Amino acid sequence: MSSFKRKIDPAAISDLTIARLSVYLRCVDRLIELGIETVSSQELARRFSLNSAQIRKDLAYFGEFGVRGVGYQVQELRQYLIEILGLDRERRMVIVGAGNLGTALCHYSGFSGDSFLVVGILDSDPQRIGQPTPSGLLVEDSSRMGEIVQQRRAEIGVIATPARSAQRICDQMVESGLRAILNFATARIRAPESVRVKTVDLKVHLEELSFYMTHGD
Amino acid sequence: MSSFKRKIDPAAISDLTIARLSVYLRCVDRLIELGIETVSSQELARRFSLNSAQIRKDLAYFGEFGVRGVGYQVQELRQYLIEILGLDRERRMVIVGAGNLGTALCHYSGFSGDSFLVVGILDSDPQRIGQPTPSGLLVEDSSRMGEIVQQRRAEIGVIATPARSAQRICDQMVESGLRAILNFATARIRAPESVRVKTVDLKVHLEELSFYMTHGD
Repeated sequence: MSSFKRKIDPAAISDLTIARLSVYLRCVDRLIELGIETVSSQELARRFSLNSAQIRKDLAYFGEFGVRGVGYQVQELRQYLIEILGLDRERRMVIVGAGNLGTALCHYSGFSGDSFLVVGILDSDPQRIGQPTPSGLLVEDSSRMGEIVQQRRAEIGVIATPARSAQRICDQMVESGLRAILNFATARIRAPESVRVKTVDLKVHLEELSFYMTHGD
Repeated sequence: MSSFKRKIDPAAISDLTIARLSVYLRCVDRLIELGIETVSSQELARRFSLNSAQIRKDLAYFGEFGVRGVGYQVQELRQYLIEILGLDRERRMVIVGAGNLGTALCHYSGFSGDSFLVVGILDSDPQRIGQPTPSGLLVEDSSRMGEIVQQRRAEIGVIATPARSAQRICDQMVESGLRAILNFATARIRAPESVRVKTVDLKVHLEELSFYMTHGD
């Protein structure tokens, strides 16, 4: 099944390329829903308002896909994208911060598909520890992070705390052996190079809407 | 003060360009914190791991910035970015869905700065209507959306409901006169062309981390 085993240098690929691979995967899933079996980069671009030259360029980083004049075999492209993104295995996450945001993320459907699984939600507030979340997990004491990460083989930490706690939680996540951190706190955080940090800034989406509201009709 | 009055065709600008303008604004704010008064595209690129040619290209869409050999005047660049993004006025929002996510967004600090203001949080659940949120707003009945939008001059609607309700809420937002919609539900929604819709898919961030975990050391 898994035919994609080329060595990839992640430093050569921009974050924007990776983000587009996720978009292509969504599009391919949609084509499969529609029963479409082959697609050209032009058709993919037209149907989903993408750029066909960009699609070819992005996919060319990862080897030879598609057949000239025919296009991509949709199932095969899906499998390639899943392998490139590393979604062919389960990634376990712990969320720190059991306030509204952490609780929402805990049962956010995008966070509990085939590839990602929330295995713990932690907080330091004694009022929250032991309380059930809507997804069925009980909130656990964040002082037990190291033990929980190791026992449940978690790889990703999600920071859903106030900004003032974010760096401390990040340090604790690094020490616990987590390999990647998704930060929702509105604070800059630093981690060693071996740990990948992604800070999510939801305000950029509002700014995008604001741009179109300003320059639209 | 406002020297930037060039007519912009939003159809000629990609979403990714807009997203980068938001990034440049964050960088410029950081330079101001650091007391830096002028910056070249090369220095901006080096300091924040960006692409200097891309910076020049992105800003060139919007007119002539910077002085050859000197670079950008930081305060002036900030003012330009704010005007381009339409952040020089207040944009009022209503959030629909007062569950964990809607409540979290209601007091998310990125959503309550100089440019954006949450003026209402609505739900259809009688158990939630009338309850206070941590940000001090009371949850109101979503059947009153039209009246609330008009009275409080809201322009942006934020959907924080389950996927199954998203299209119905979207339709109601369009009818209420909202001009832009930020959709956090994991559902595709459709609106007339006159209303800009941005669907936020938080899973893409996990997929990006997964890529680096897969292809890193």
